[in-house]
Amino acid sequence: MIKANDPGLQSWIEVPANSDFPIQNLPFGVGALTSLLHNGQGEILSIGGDLAEVDLGGPVTIIGNTVISLEALQAIGYLSSLNLPEGVFSTQYLNEFIELGKPVWRALRDRLSEIFRKDNPELRDDKEARKKCLFNVADVQMLMPVKIGDYTDFYSSKEHATNVGTMFRDPKNALLPNWLHLPVAYHGRASSVIVSGQNFHRPKGQMTPPNTETPVFGPTKALDIELETAFIIGKSTELGQSVSTKDAEDHIFGMVLFNDWSARDIQRWEYVPLGPFLAKNFASTISPWIVTLDALEPFRVKAPEQQTPVLPYLQHAPGNTAVDINLEVYLQPENTDALKICTSNYKYMYWTMDQQLAHHTVNGCNINVGDMMASGTISGPTPDSFGSLLEITWGGANPIKFPNGTERKYLQDGDTVIIKGYAKNDNVRIGFGEAKAKVLPAL
Amino acid sequence: MIKANDPGLQSWIEVPANSDFPIQNLPFGVGALTSLLHNGQGEILSIGGDLAEVDLGGPVTIIGNTVISLEALQAIGYLSSLNLPEGVFSTQYLNEFIELGKPVWRALRDRLSEIFRKDNPELRDDKEARKKCLFNVADVQMLMPVKIGDYTDFYSSKEHATNVGTMFRDPKNALLPNWLHLPVAYHGRASSVIVSGQNFHRPKGQMTPPNTETPVFGPTKALDIELETAFIIGKSTELGQSVSTKDAEDHIFGMVLFNDWSARDIQRWEYVPLGPFLAKNFASTISPWIVTLDALEPFRVKAPEQQTPVLPYLQHAPGNTAVDINLEVYLQPENTDALKICTSNYKYMYWTMDQQLAHHTVNGCNINVGDMMASGTISGPTPDSFGSLLEITWGGANPIKFPNGTERKYLQDGDTVIIKGYAKNDNVRIGFGEAKAKVLPAL
Repeated sequence: MIKANDPGLQSWIEVPANSDFPIQNLPFGVGALTSLLHNGQGEILSIGGDLAEVDLGGPVTIIGNTVISLEALQAIGYLSSLNLPEGVFSTQYLNEFIELGKPVWRALRDRLSEIFRKDNPELRDDKEARKKCLFNVADVQMLMPVKIGDYTDFYSSKEHATNVGTMFRDPKNALLPNWLHLPVAYHGRASSVIVSGQNFHRPKGQMTPPNTETPVFGPTKALDIELETAFIIGKSTELGQSVSTKDAEDHIFGMVLFNDWSARDIQRWEYVPLGPFLAKNFASTISPWIVTLDALEPFRVKAPEQQTPVLPYLQHAPGNTAVDINLEVYLQPENTDALKICTSNYKYMYWTMDQQLAHHTVNGCNINVGDMMASGTISGPTPDSFGSLLEITWGGANPIKFPNGTERKYLQDGDTVIIKGYAKNDNVRIGFGEAKAKVLPAL
Repeated sequence: MIKANDPGLQSWIEVPANSDFPIQNLPFGVGALTSLLHNGQGEILSIGGDLAEVDLGGPVTIIGNTVISLEALQAIGYLSSLNLPEGVFSTQYLNEFIELGKPVWRALRDRLSEIFRKDNPELRDDKEARKKCLFNVADVQMLMPVKIGDYTDFYSSKEHATNVGTMFRDPKNALLPNWLHLPVAYHGRASSVIVSGQNFHRPKGQMTPPNTETPVFGPTKALDIELETAFIIGKSTELGQSVSTKDAEDHIFGMVLFNDWSARDIQRWEYVPLGPFLAKNFASTISPWIVTLDALEPFRVKAPEQQTPVLPYLQHAPGNTAVDINLEVYLQPENTDALKICTSNYKYMYWTMDQQLAHHTVNGCNINVGDMMASGTISGPTPDSFGSLLEITWGGANPIKFPNGTERKYLQDGDTVIIKGYAKNDNVRIGFGEAKAKVLPAL
């Protein structure tokens, strides 16, 4: 077992019941003190180089409700046994740290686990040092954790692909011929991946009224969500190299929650023959904390059996290649209580991360630290586990009904969507926090 | 007229007849002295931070066969009138310089034009300074000119889309319904865009033998080219902002040649419904010199008339929105003379750069300096102007025949493909150099 995962460990930092962030989690993110970032009008100021010079502004981890500055820990000397490069945490993104490789991620996690365990006085009893290293989560603005090189979106939930195929093509042949043979994917836009808490404007674009092929222009009328997770590349390859399913997880730093906002009417008109473009690239929201695969190790489970044989490069060694992560989607119209509209699980995925990465690189495509690869909509077997409004309302036939009478087929202006995720067993709960954003009116 | 474009200007640097790089061009690139880069075995060593400390390693321009170090020019003081930020050329990419904006690009081009005009002795007569600033092109390895954030590929040649639609769908309805209403595009892979001279390995992947839907795995048997150009973003936008056709060219730094290598058999099996992925993302080759829109100003021409009315956000102000750039493709099997297989022109494009950028951002998608947006295959009206082997051989029906009897339907290992491009009138020739690479055997 990985040392830092010991379910018996407790921290001298208070961890509320049901916290996403016990000492066994130790996810990585990038944060800045809210007071430094805001101009008093609720707007985030641009992030300059100066942030690295303040106590908090840069790579962080979290226990309970306490955000921990890795830069400060290093500056005071608490990480000296790890021999990390100077300045590795004086950065705006985690990429430099991630570049150091899996043994270093593990060593840091082990050391953090040691510093913050209940019986270790070295930081616990040093009030001055604590003031420099520890911050209340309420005072911290979480920022994009990595500089994304390339972003890829897979389409790897069989239930989702079947639902979409049933609605738009033929219920008897819902899956396209290639779907069971390869993890279908497409390239997305890295520049518009945003972090939880950053709201965005309803996109405008071309769409066709029913039964016409003459487009009109305007704000989308069919703004949807896609419940996804994404993994972040932790080890680069050179052009021409491939990564096997066996080695894939050496190249994965960790996972985040991911909402692939989609404008269905724009998508329907634009996507043939080259795939989705403006229907997706206006915004995608991630959760700010990257949960490492190591922290998720106790929650590995077998992936669904693939009854159609796959080519050798997509075959797994026997073992637990999936992860049991509970996923929830909440929808909150303005002045209305949030309603849980989906309860799904990452373990339903037909194609695993290992297979996705092996496929992505089998042609020699190079990957870089910080690249993000999203799962595609994660729908489960039952209607309450469908991961998009398109599926939940079955194309609008069954609107979502709120207790106060409000109904939704697609998102309206002012709606907030929150994705939550956590892995849980009898001993420990490893959470992801949330991926949250509000739909602002079109500009 | 832009001052640096004066066709009467001559340089004290020798410019051979038919050079791509007269003093009126002054394209921007990134170069390093070959002697510093190679390990003696023909392999390029990795580019470290040290390069910036040598005489040549970083942003450059070119006149005739003489590469000019911008870092050295700045260091010696020749650019002091421009008040450029210190260190702006002590970098591995042009992005920092491009960030300074169009007025600065113009001012630098004007100043370069002044330094190198025949009657200006300031550098011409300073032998020591010349030694630090000027290098023979044969001694210089050209590198990737920009750090690409996101890469988008359009599909904007009506002739190409018609050819493909005719071959694979219905000659009477060759264009899909959306094609005349919007510049179709998809996101590609930024990490695998490589610079001319870097060879690549034939990609492997899944493909289906004729009349089956059970894939096999192996090296592609249908490796193709796509003759394209690409423009490079010179001014960023924030998420939510749109760029109008009128303002588009303030956001464009310049253009390069682009070869979008494609594996047709992999593409055919994978691309429905989300578009091309592994069929394209193993390599795309660009020419190393970015030719500015200013240098291309004398070659602006009217774009083809769009007979189907477009929505207001895609309409142009009247004017010359296309560019007359001659494009040529040469194919050279090993031990065989290169054969010109295509003579096309950028002016054939149905959708202009302005329209492409307006469309890309109309939904609020943000763009960043260094982003690359490729045209899609540029086919002209006649078979000798088709921009892909798929079209040139009409799906393999008419193989290309070399004088020595060699034939080609698709590319074989050892084949080199060279794209060249130049704009030309009675006074001046503004060239792009070449985008060249050889197909190495699959790994």
